[in-house]
Amino acid sequence: MKYQVRVFVSLKPSILDPQGRTVERAVSHLGHDNVSGVRVGKLIEMVLEGERAAVEAQARELAGTVLSNPVMEDARVEIEELALQASV
Amino acid sequence: MKYQVRVFVSLKPSILDPQGRTVERAVSHLGHDNVSGVRVGKLIEMVLEGERAAVEAQARELAGTVLSNPVMEDARVEIEELALQASV
Repeated sequence: MKYQVRVFVSLKPSILDPQGRTVERAVSHLGHDNVSGVRVGKLIEMVLEGERAAVEAQARELAGTVLSNPVMEDARVEIEELALQASV
Repeated sequence: MKYQVRVFVSLKPSILDPQGRTVERAVSHLGHDNVSGVRVGKLIEMVLEGERAAVEAQARELAGTVLSNPVMEDARVEIEELALQASV
């Protein structure tokens, strides 16, 4: 079975986010003065093949080691079964 | 009222994603040979203040213009009301 896995990686709240600050200033210069707390993170999408339980464990392992830096980032994992006709 | 806005930006399926290819190869070298279709996108989180309808329109406008490149990227917007005690 194939699963669509989405990993959302965001900087921990205590870590400064210069990219987010830059976006915030740019947006504010464009007249959007009601925008605050901009944080820029990553979204990694991938297809994993295998049994559900194994895929879940593997996705969490990848998210916490290869795809994020657990010292500075939080990672959240979403898993969704791929319909056969949508398989890649 | 304050709203937590999340913008998910991913490359359109027809656009090559060298960053995703690199992650895929790295993961495969680590022994994960059941991983395919890796795509790397962005996750932008921000707080918008205002009326719900205005915030929705503004979030969609920002997502489609400043935060993504509509020629190459798809943007999806999620909006969630912030509880007062959680406001920033």
